[in-house]
Amino acid sequence: MTIESGNLFDDVAEDLDEEAVETLVSSGSMRLVRIVSTGQATPEGDWYDQDDWEWVVLLKGAAGLRFEGEAQVRALAPGDFVHIPAHKRHRVEWTAADEPTVWLALHHEG
Amino acid sequence: MTIESGNLFDDVAEDLDEEAVETLVSSGSMRLVRIVSTGQATPEGDWYDQDDWEWVVLLKGAAGLRFEGEAQVRALAPGDFVHIPAHKRHRVEWTAADEPTVWLALHHEG
Repeated sequence: MTIESGNLFDDVAEDLDEEAVETLVSSGSMRLVRIVSTGQATPEGDWYDQDDWEWVVLLKGAAGLRFEGEAQVRALAPGDFVHIPAHKRHRVEWTAADEPTVWLALHHEG
Repeated sequence: MTIESGNLFDDVAEDLDEEAVETLVSSGSMRLVRIVSTGQATPEGDWYDQDDWEWVVLLKGAAGLRFEGEAQVRALAPGDFVHIPAHKRHRVEWTAADEPTVWLALHHEG
């Protein structure tokens, strides 16, 4: 049996039209993905409102994450993680413009 | 609802008697854990033989991973991941002695 392997920082594009999402593991309703952002943000006025939970860690780069009801944008640095409950509305206010931002996100049922 | 958050590189001990394993997410049979190693290795002659699959990434430090039937030890650097099938026997040959090694491991059913 082949053992899948790789490096999370390989094949990271420097300039993308849209965020790049790649599935690493998928099992039942659980999904682990790598996301690469290059300056993208959630469109003005939009919110993510997800049916599943999301544990997400920023591994490289930087980003600003806002949760509905919070006055302050949370600035994320490498290693910072948040566990976002289902239907907790949130948006990505910004991602670094000068380097790719690499995220690892685990979507799962509560 | 409180949003759990933290940083994967916080509270990393420099010198541990045993590897430190901390659960970050647990849902059904899925479990996401952070592991910190400080020079530990699988005892001579022992193998891990797990009922579940394990997707594991090394985030900091360095380690050598051996799979049964492979002649070479795989040297892992930051960002390197492997997806270990259930019952694929493997061992950690070494972890860095001069700095903590931080892993993120996702255990799941196949």
